[in-house]
Amino acid sequence: MPPHLNSRNASRRSSNPIMYSNSSGMVKPPPIEKKIECTLEDLCYGCKKKIMITRDVLTDTGGIVQEEELVTINVQPGWKKGTKITFEGKGNERPGAYREDIICIISEKRHELFRREGDDLELSVEISLVKALTGCTILVPLLGGEHMTLTLDNIIHPGYEKIIFGQGMPISSEPGMRGNLKITFLVEFPTQLSYNQRSEVVRILQDSS
Amino acid sequence: MPPHLNSRNASRRSSNPIMYSNSSGMVKPPPIEKKIECTLEDLCYGCKKKIMITRDVLTDTGGIVQEEELVTINVQPGWKKGTKITFEGKGNERPGAYREDIICIISEKRHELFRREGDDLELSVEISLVKALTGCTILVPLLGGEHMTLTLDNIIHPGYEKIIFGQGMPISSEPGMRGNLKITFLVEFPTQLSYNQRSEVVRILQDSS
Repeated sequence: MPPHLNSRNASRRSSNPIMYSNSSGMVKPPPIEKKIECTLEDLCYGCKKKIMITRDVLTDTGGIVQEEELVTINVQPGWKKGTKITFEGKGNERPGAYREDIICIISEKRHELFRREGDDLELSVEISLVKALTGCTILVPLLGGEHMTLTLDNIIHPGYEKIIFGQGMPISSEPGMRGNLKITFLVEFPTQLSYNQRSEVVRILQDSS
Repeated sequence: MPPHLNSRNASRRSSNPIMYSNSSGMVKPPPIEKKIECTLEDLCYGCKKKIMITRDVLTDTGGIVQEEELVTINVQPGWKKGTKITFEGKGNERPGAYREDIICIISEKRHELFRREGDDLELSVEISLVKALTGCTILVPLLGGEHMTLTLDNIIHPGYEKIIFGQGMPISSEPGMRGNLKITFLVEFPTQLSYNQRSEVVRILQDSS
């Protein structure tokens, strides 16, 4: 039986661990949930996650043996945390009951640089005060290890935002489209200035608007 | 009957609007809650809040008349939002029931400058980049309308914090004591600089540490 993406049904069943039975008298136990941790790169470019399932299976003589199965999850570009994939009947078998389902739930590993916000990515970049005031060209990291050069001509005040279109996460519902990368700038101040530097700063900047 | 500060009893009663009866067969209806809005100044210096209560009262003939009463709440320095004051039996009268209690609940009006955080006050102050880099003396507003002068010698980076001891809110449990005023600095950047200003800034600041 192929795995299928979570139906609302499956998710409701998982939060309500009450067995139910049908006309055959067989009960269906609540599903087993497994967390599948993905990096932002996994969720951006897609990947295959293989997981080993160990389950109890009934023998003809009424005993229980353990069985292992390697299942593969094809993580699609743009999947979000909380996405559920149901493997029907891949769980334990018990007398008088249908086999349990296994539901894999995608979780998102914290990224060192980027924070995901829906289909967008957010990045903080710190630049020195001199660069913030006088302009500069910086290398901006992109998800996946690439960089892009960004030339800043404006004065960059602390909290300044720059949007890089199409460098966010893939949009599941619109193949080929991606969200944006939102860069927020922090400005690193000098920790000390000499008396001369101070008076020069006053001379140069005091009439700035 | 003098008002008294909220007992846990009263607060529990208010969240559970089920009438209860005693051996006399009289029921006690749930209390009426009234919101009393106070400014941070009211809660800092204390004040008297007069409120007009209108209640139904039973007449000897079984009719209902309305009665008004002006009650006073002595707001004490340091009271926090959520403080409850119970006026027992000051509410409506109904056949077969004790008079309702009235519970006044202190709420805090948003202040233009200050934000309360427990016994402390928080204030954001914006200074120009020149002042942030070269030092300055500023006038800091205090709750109640006074100001204090504050001399800044260090370089003030965006987010720099300065604590002014004893200029927060009164601490109810320690008469005469007050929390602190926490000032967070924002730095206002110039919006444009001339070519000359830019090259001067580079010359002066590029070797700063």
